[in-house]
Amino acid sequence: MSLNRQAAIVDISHSIRPQDVFQAAFLLHTAWGYFPEGTIHIVVVDPGVGSGRRILLLKTPRAYFIAPDNGVLSYILAEISPGIVKGEASFPELPDDLRMGEVPSGVEAYALTNARFWRQPVSSTFHGRDIFAPVAAHLSLGVPMAELGEVVSSVLVFPIPRPLITDKGIIHGHIVHVDGFGNLVTDVRAEDIPSGNLIIEAGGHRVRGLSPSYSAGGELLALIGSSGYMEVAAKNGNAAERLGLGVGDAVIIRKLRGGQGCGYS
Amino acid sequence: MSLNRQAAIVDISHSIRPQDVFQAAFLLHTAWGYFPEGTIHIVVVDPGVGSGRRILLLKTPRAYFIAPDNGVLSYILAEISPGIVKGEASFPELPDDLRMGEVPSGVEAYALTNARFWRQPVSSTFHGRDIFAPVAAHLSLGVPMAELGEVVSSVLVFPIPRPLITDKGIIHGHIVHVDGFGNLVTDVRAEDIPSGNLIIEAGGHRVRGLSPSYSAGGELLALIGSSGYMEVAAKNGNAAERLGLGVGDAVIIRKLRGGQGCGYS
Amino acid sequence: MSLNRQAAIVDISHSIRPQDVFQAAFLLHTAWGYFPEGTIHIVVVDPGVGSGRRILLLKTPRAYFIAPDNGVLSYILAEISPGIVKGEASFPELPDDLRMGEVPSGVEAYALTNARFWRQPVSSTFHGRDIFAPVAAHLSLGVPMAELGEVVSSVLVFPIPRPLITDKGIIHGHIVHVDGFGNLVTDVRAEDIPSGNLIIEAGGHRVRGLSPSYSAGGELLALIGSSGYMEVAAKNGNAAERLGLGVGDAVIIRKLRGGQGCGYS
Repeated sequence: MSLNRQAAIVDISHSIRPQDVFQAAFLLHTAWGYFPEGTIHIVVVDPGVGSGRRILLLKTPRAYFIAPDNGVLSYILAEISPGIVKGEASFPELPDDLRMGEVPSGVEAYALTNARFWRQPVSSTFHGRDIFAPVAAHLSLGVPMAELGEVVSSVLVFPIPRPLITDKGIIHGHIVHVDGFGNLVTDVRAEDIPSGNLIIEAGGHRVRGLSPSYSAGGELLALIGSSGYMEVAAKNGNAAERLGLGVGDAVIIRKLRGGQGCGYS
Repeated sequence: MSLNRQAAIVDISHSIRPQDVFQAAFLLHTAWGYFPEGTIHIVVVDPGVGSGRRILLLKTPRAYFIAPDNGVLSYILAEISPGIVKGEASFPELPDDLRMGEVPSGVEAYALTNARFWRQPVSSTFHGRDIFAPVAAHLSLGVPMAELGEVVSSVLVFPIPRPLITDKGIIHGHIVHVDGFGNLVTDVRAEDIPSGNLIIEAGGHRVRGLSPSYSAGGELLALIGSSGYMEVAAKNGNAAERLGLGVGDAVIIRKLRGGQGCGYS
Repeated sequence: MSLNRQAAIVDISHSIRPQDVFQAAFLLHTAWGYFPEGTIHIVVVDPGVGSGRRILLLKTPRAYFIAPDNGVLSYILAEISPGIVKGEASFPELPDDLRMGEVPSGVEAYALTNARFWRQPVSSTFHGRDIFAPVAAHLSLGVPMAELGEVVSSVLVFPIPRPLITDKGIIHGHIVHVDGFGNLVTDVRAEDIPSGNLIIEAGGHRVRGLSPSYSAGGELLALIGSSGYMEVAAKNGNAAERLGLGVGDAVIIRKLRGGQGCGYS
């Protein structure tokens, strides 16, 4: 606000677990699209602050992103170019599973290097305050990206978790997020789920079929959440606490064989 | 902000307990009057999201409210028309104690039905994002209420908790809110309390008289809080933890008989 | 916003522990300088609300402050005039260690007394809402300070904690803040620390030397944090939990004698 008094500043979340780059990446994935076109998103989940890690500025067709080069933009890049970060049937270990991915066409990527646009002195522990925010302000005032840093052609990404689907059509999904209500959000998307009668298994419990809403199912229920991913919820309760499950744990979807109710495949 | 870049968006609270419609209703009651005239208040405590519950748009003499039809506007309506939700000497069970109440004169009420003003696609689990917020934006830009939905003449309300006052003048109040400091806010209003020497009982402890401020009483004290309700507080401490009391529990006010200190009525 | 629709309102923190005037003072000290010149900072950590305590309005060379006269502006005043609140080699007990300090030159100080600029009726428990915020709004609209209250020449301050440095050069510091990551921020400033090989002791653990960043040290590390104070951190962990330390506890810095690694002084 010292540089651009007209900027509208919105906090998406202050509840990311410390150093949890994956959680930040997933939340950004589910939130950024609901902001106005041209929004500058600043991501300050940055356990490597002050080390040699680069700071990225990305321009995608609808938004800008300023973030450390630690994988936190993996979902954003996968939305544009699913190939950049091939999905794997497992949950990523960070930072071990990071690899270089090529910046897809349609995206401009820079590493911030021009200290002229940074607050001085720059601390070694809070680049969000000293670099990310001032650069975002200058960008919002029209400074060209090419003045802020240097073009890069590849960035660090992690493999996006995706469900494993067996030959028999059994879907082995992963919990990727536990929301503030304790709902267990999985990596299984609406389009991954076959039609027909389903059994969803989580933490030793079984749920029959998808519910249309939180209030329509039984005590334990599964539904397609507001970001298009299947989640397991406890009616007026906390599914994570009740099932003792968390991020990385499995949720399995089976299709009922033959007629309804005659057994499980 | 995508629809109305000039909107000023203020978050009242992100600390409502999940599904706690009563807590949301009480907080709204104590906060809305301090916002500018014409403010649009959006209430997204909505355990029935995606079910058949209606979404309400109310225009009162000083403000607009967009909320699910689940009783969360009961206090707002009772401020305008105390008769709509007769107080009862008990704490409401929700949703069991909901009933239909007539919209009072001076209030315009609509059910949101015109999907043209909603974000598409509409999820079944997050109408705050997909319906409430876009409708509020259109309303702020001057779209007439009659275009957004259809007039309704009655809405769901719960009975507002009120203290029971016995023939002998003993006031049986209820704790309706525990604030962030652990103060126990009751349904006893300043005007319910007789003058004279009082004994306030809560959780087996007795407090003598009302204090003018948090720092003026003893270790445990009672005073009229900033919303006009009597509360029980622990000096520089947490009354809820110290007394083991919470929402729905009793607080009793007795008037001392005769001269000061000569006994309890 | 009812009085000044153009005001930009930013929340610094809602996470101050109840009644913790020292924590509020320290956070204000580390945050205020990053706001635009002329910002009006409102501090509502006010356990004495409704008592006879004064409400202060300070104008410093770069900002305004509205706060109760309970010591919460001690660091602000010490930044301008280190002499006003002599540092002592101990952690202050509040409110016992409060004393009157003279307002330094370059600072204008008023006690808010003109109820014409307050919201009516004024509660006895929430002056932030009824006095501080309306006065800030009027001030932002150009009302002269002299209309809002009366000049005062001294205010309550506590002694700023400072490390004790022994004849042998051993630095006995205090933990003054535990941040949201569990990092232990001390009162030892970068300029207090001698060059050379250091051993930092905290909670029975020893750390060798200062790290350039959180990711550069060992499992337990010490560094100069973003506000210029030395802090002890656990790599990707919570130092406060791991060491069982908190505000007021000791951190000791010794210089290694002679050659590197040949023993502790």
